[in-house]
Amino acid sequence: MSETYGEKAARLDAIDELGKHREKFALDAGTVYLDGNSLGALPAHVPARMADVITREWGELRIRSWGESGWWTAPERIGDRIAPIVGAAPGQIVVGDSTSVNVFKAVVAAARLSGEDRDEILVDATTFPTDGYIAESAARMTGHRIVPVEPAGMADAAGPRTAAALVNHVDYRSGRLHDLPGITAALHAAGALAVWDLCHSAGALPVGLDAHGVDLAVGCTYKYLNGGPGSPAYLYVAERHQNAFDSPLPGWNSHTDPFAMTPGYEAAAGAVRGRVGTPDILSMLALEAALDVWDGVAIEDVRAKSLALTDFFLECVRAYVPEGRVRSVTPDTHAERGSQVALSCENAPAVMAELIRRGVVGDLRRPDVLRFGFTPLYVGFADAERAARVLSEVLTEGPADLAS
Amino acid sequence: MSETYGEKAARLDAIDELGKHREKFALDAGTVYLDGNSLGALPAHVPARMADVITREWGELRIRSWGESGWWTAPERIGDRIAPIVGAAPGQIVVGDSTSVNVFKAVVAAARLSGEDRDEILVDATTFPTDGYIAESAARMTGHRIVPVEPAGMADAAGPRTAAALVNHVDYRSGRLHDLPGITAALHAAGALAVWDLCHSAGALPVGLDAHGVDLAVGCTYKYLNGGPGSPAYLYVAERHQNAFDSPLPGWNSHTDPFAMTPGYEAAAGAVRGRVGTPDILSMLALEAALDVWDGVAIEDVRAKSLALTDFFLECVRAYVPEGRVRSVTPDTHAERGSQVALSCENAPAVMAELIRRGVVGDLRRPDVLRFGFTPLYVGFADAERAARVLSEVLTEGPADLAS
Repeated sequence: MSETYGEKAARLDAIDELGKHREKFALDAGTVYLDGNSLGALPAHVPARMADVITREWGELRIRSWGESGWWTAPERIGDRIAPIVGAAPGQIVVGDSTSVNVFKAVVAAARLSGEDRDEILVDATTFPTDGYIAESAARMTGHRIVPVEPAGMADAAGPRTAAALVNHVDYRSGRLHDLPGITAALHAAGALAVWDLCHSAGALPVGLDAHGVDLAVGCTYKYLNGGPGSPAYLYVAERHQNAFDSPLPGWNSHTDPFAMTPGYEAAAGAVRGRVGTPDILSMLALEAALDVWDGVAIEDVRAKSLALTDFFLECVRAYVPEGRVRSVTPDTHAERGSQVALSCENAPAVMAELIRRGVVGDLRRPDVLRFGFTPLYVGFADAERAARVLSEVLTEGPADLAS
Repeated sequence: MSETYGEKAARLDAIDELGKHREKFALDAGTVYLDGNSLGALPAHVPARMADVITREWGELRIRSWGESGWWTAPERIGDRIAPIVGAAPGQIVVGDSTSVNVFKAVVAAARLSGEDRDEILVDATTFPTDGYIAESAARMTGHRIVPVEPAGMADAAGPRTAAALVNHVDYRSGRLHDLPGITAALHAAGALAVWDLCHSAGALPVGLDAHGVDLAVGCTYKYLNGGPGSPAYLYVAERHQNAFDSPLPGWNSHTDPFAMTPGYEAAAGAVRGRVGTPDILSMLALEAALDVWDGVAIEDVRAKSLALTDFFLECVRAYVPEGRVRSVTPDTHAERGSQVALSCENAPAVMAELIRRGVVGDLRRPDVLRFGFTPLYVGFADAERAARVLSEVLTEGPADLAS
């Protein structure tokens, strides 16, 4: 008798080297949490750390904590904790502000780093919307124009008028992984800069910012990095660009001597130049604590498990779900797949609501996409099997039930 | 025998109606905390609230909290909590981002709201530096030029080329209160917009944003509003400007239908248009909880006590400190005084270090200013007397001790 999918899941979980990290997270047995690509689960040690930050560092040390508790240097210190996860040497990442604000800094800075004769900024036509909105504003304010291009067409679209391109490493909707090394090289060949949005790749797969010569990058920290709701984003400025990095948001935190409080702005050296105002310490230190779960974890192992999980989930979906009820919009090819599976489905809003009611938490992207995110540090193969099984149950019970 | 200053302090504390609020804060008897104008003290109920936010809302409800726990609407909800403190009707304030980022939004928006023929932006020449740095960037990106002007000279400086002025309500260094009603009226008479920075006035004295017809305003929440280290700032856009408010940071959170995720940007109506990216929920909800201390507090009462405290502190300083050792740079006139006393002093860095070692916590503004902030909800008259007494002790023990 051949192995069932449940048996296969148990076998794969038993030999999963990353499975031991699951106990670092606050999870409940009743839920399969496949929305860590939107909000990562809570690392179990974070509440105690934050109680100390709030009660002792804020409540007792108060203002002294800016120095004694290391608050002031948190943005660059935490940047250096994220750096190895995205393949960056230290000193190139600062944490702070939202992803949107960092997109603005990065696109304006890229536009300014390029030659005067380059007046076009290519923007991923399939981008998460905020990148497009913010790039449009950056272009308007620097006298550039936006050219929407699908990532696969970036190489052909880049030319002598291209200042920079803003591309998503993994598409938020389809889960498609774009060719960061190839697109970056093509942009460079055209004399343009590459600005990457890593929101859906950092912490899920190797990025290799330094190795592939990326110029600027941004990303959020509340998905695969588990920093907590709205935890601050980060900005990567490759070392070779730092001296010429010209921020549109030159707040006092990026001044070479902030407490001199001089009327004239003098930009600090290094990644710190990407800072703006006073950092949101509570959100930032929750992120810093959350990054402890990465100690001893190799991103290559995370990637291997991620692919195994999404392969297995797709296999279970094919086996369990009646033909024609869902269609994967996530590429089958490993080289083109991030760490989520997106299934196009009729009645998707009702289907997702029912899945959640039955303890399988994914999310919806209107109008018709069910998203299932696989976070290898705390999702296992039994989760993937159960999610596919419950999806099949929900779909076979038919639309009448779904409309309720 | 006449009353001693200690006796007078006890008498004033005994009849102080606001004194009862002190128990709402985590304070220790050994410290006189006069740095609440930099980082407000911890409201005692905030740790329990944050434990619930982290453990239950993030840890258990996870992604559902964006709806069920009201995370998504926090920026505008908390804005409406701040509104009465600064004299604004609901629907005009959103919380989020740093003060610097909000200065950028406000100055760019003000420049765009003005006519094309107005190419000058007046900036408070004595401003906290980040406002100047950011205004310069805003001017550069909108084709305006910056004219530095002391607040007292704004009325004369404003003319047909003035698009807007950015002014601090209370000077961060001297504690001088500027004439918000008068300067706003003068700017309007010249056809220009008034953008106010309320960092050092909100929560310390009545602002009257609506009553005085202020156009745009920004402020931080970690000083007199006790929101916690780096808690998010806020942006006020007067209702009459909201439809034409044109943000330089049109992130997806300011879209009229964010989850439609359409490639084209359509600005939301109302204050929400000032939002940018995903809000930093932990920092934001700590602020929301901290605002509970304002329940039943009238800002007029806070102002009355603030003036009584700073009057009494100055009286004690004059009585205790040897002639000529310190000089107040804070105006004596009530109409020109915020809620801090700034004393110019030789050896100021060493003096402040020694004060802090002896439990009197103020701060330093280089090169020679000792700052003492008076936060009426948790600072009393005995604190003021003790601070002046310890200051006198430190100064009379001479420079030899100070150098140690």
